[in-house]
Amino acid sequence: MMTNKINSKEAATLLKNADNILILAHKNPDGDTLGSAFALLRVLKKLSKNAFVDCSDEIPPKYSYMWEGIENIRIENPDFVVCVDIADIKLLGGENTSKYEGKVNLCIDHHMSNTQYAQNLFLRECAATCEIIYEVIENLEAELDKGIADCIYTGLSTDTGCFRYSNVTPSTHILAAKMLELDADFDIINRVMFETKTRAYLKLEELVLNSIEMYYGGKCAVITITQEMFRQSGSNESECDGIASLPRKIEGVLVGISIRERTDGTFKVSLRTYEPINAAQVCGKFGGGGHARAAGCEFSDDFETSKKKLLDTIKEELESI
Amino acid sequence: MMTNKINSKEAATLLKNADNILILAHKNPDGDTLGSAFALLRVLKKLSKNAFVDCSDEIPPKYSYMWEGIENIRIENPDFVVCVDIADIKLLGGENTSKYEGKVNLCIDHHMSNTQYAQNLFLRECAATCEIIYEVIENLEAELDKGIADCIYTGLSTDTGCFRYSNVTPSTHILAAKMLELDADFDIINRVMFETKTRAYLKLEELVLNSIEMYYGGKCAVITITQEMFRQSGSNESECDGIASLPRKIEGVLVGISIRERTDGTFKVSLRTYEPINAAQVCGKFGGGGHARAAGCEFSDDFETSKKKLLDTIKEELESI
Repeated sequence: MMTNKINSKEAATLLKNADNILILAHKNPDGDTLGSAFALLRVLKKLSKNAFVDCSDEIPPKYSYMWEGIENIRIENPDFVVCVDIADIKLLGGENTSKYEGKVNLCIDHHMSNTQYAQNLFLRECAATCEIIYEVIENLEAELDKGIADCIYTGLSTDTGCFRYSNVTPSTHILAAKMLELDADFDIINRVMFETKTRAYLKLEELVLNSIEMYYGGKCAVITITQEMFRQSGSNESECDGIASLPRKIEGVLVGISIRERTDGTFKVSLRTYEPINAAQVCGKFGGGGHARAAGCEFSDDFETSKKKLLDTIKEELESI
Repeated sequence: MMTNKINSKEAATLLKNADNILILAHKNPDGDTLGSAFALLRVLKKLSKNAFVDCSDEIPPKYSYMWEGIENIRIENPDFVVCVDIADIKLLGGENTSKYEGKVNLCIDHHMSNTQYAQNLFLRECAATCEIIYEVIENLEAELDKGIADCIYTGLSTDTGCFRYSNVTPSTHILAAKMLELDADFDIINRVMFETKTRAYLKLEELVLNSIEMYYGGKCAVITITQEMFRQSGSNESECDGIASLPRKIEGVLVGISIRERTDGTFKVSLRTYEPINAAQVCGKFGGGGHARAAGCEFSDDFETSKKKLLDTIKEELESI
């Protein structure tokens, strides 16, 4: 199948001419895929179209404001399928992947790794898909409101760590300003997305903090997350993303390692680095990969052997700076 | 002394006509007072003026990029004194308060509680003093550069918890966008200001997390920070600001209490609440005060008695919702 690369105006025209529209969010849904999906749903409803947002995983209740005051009724046989913030058809997850493979009419995405699985693709590199969804919405010429602004703001904020990360551009801030003008509840959204932690998570954090080991003059920090810690805290693997970034936060640390024990006894290693240490390169030596500042790999040796191998490699890297 | 209330253009004119300018930052300097001071210093230097930034406390080295590449040489007998982000002359701290009382030519500030101690005052309510310093700088008609942008961005970001808090307005984001256009190192600045933690702080956090107690169906969380914890962790009271906000972060909590033991055996209580609990009102009952969402008070009774009194009051408040 040939993918037709289009711009925001053309994407809007496709949507204008469609009805019975299914909007798909990716599995393990985050603020950007959901913000994009529900912003689009709200606009399509304003244009009196039948539309529905679906996701293969349950949507966490903290996002419930996104569908407050609107109906989201399942469409069994959609006439038009849109994927938002989805780089690959596999990321639909569950049954949705097989169900919609080859049947996606439009994809709106900001991942340059997009595998071009849709008939039409509006792709642009930017901080959040919500940035380009906004452009499509503008071309749909519907009147914007607070509900839409809450959705768009959520995508901008969550995909940038609340405007912290290097993916932010001037246009991200300018769009945030527009959403504030529309009365987006940005302070409440940020509180829910960034401030709130479960007791189980805090217990896990306490146990993990106790496991910190420092190496190589404080340039490398290692934390260990065991199955016993999950049992003790009542937390689980879904809460490990935040924990993995913990060791790199320690003053002076260039390489932060989190080693997580799996139920089958193997280990998942997450590496977070600062320049000039390349995380993907280190993990690549153990069959893993990722990005320059965040990467991962797996070990099936026993814990001490795995850790030693990894630390030896990191020692070499640190000595070569 | 009568304070002359002026606008940004008039403030700029005063600065244009002055030389040998002393710029004062407040004690316990933060990103906004320092960002304002060094942005102004950089601009005045561009206008070939003699200027100097002074602060009664030592400036933490994490802000050193603010004076990178420029000279900041002490002026003993200034002809013009400017205070930035300083609501009261007492906040100069140390000798500076007595030295400059009645001698401040210009104050640029965003605190509506400003006590009008300066001859001329440019005051406007906004997220950060850096927002209005930018307006003055624009009227000084100097060419902006990355160094200035780094300073201004720091004030915007640190005074808003990186654009999280309710004090953010559309103009805050629009100014942030301008600073990004000028190549401000926003991601590095945010990392230094928000991500980096000392090992001592993390150890303290671990000990404090172990002290969490929950009350009233999970609506109230209490943490205790003892002198023993400071000893064990190597941390100190200066790192307690972040810790005090911890209990309110727990899912479902409306009242977060942090009780800190002092060296003299008395207790400092910090209260952080969410609507509808008024923290200032609760603390007021014990002779303390503060804001609606953050307040404090002190106890000189023994620990258990103090805690019981406080918890009883909070129980009443929670029951009256």
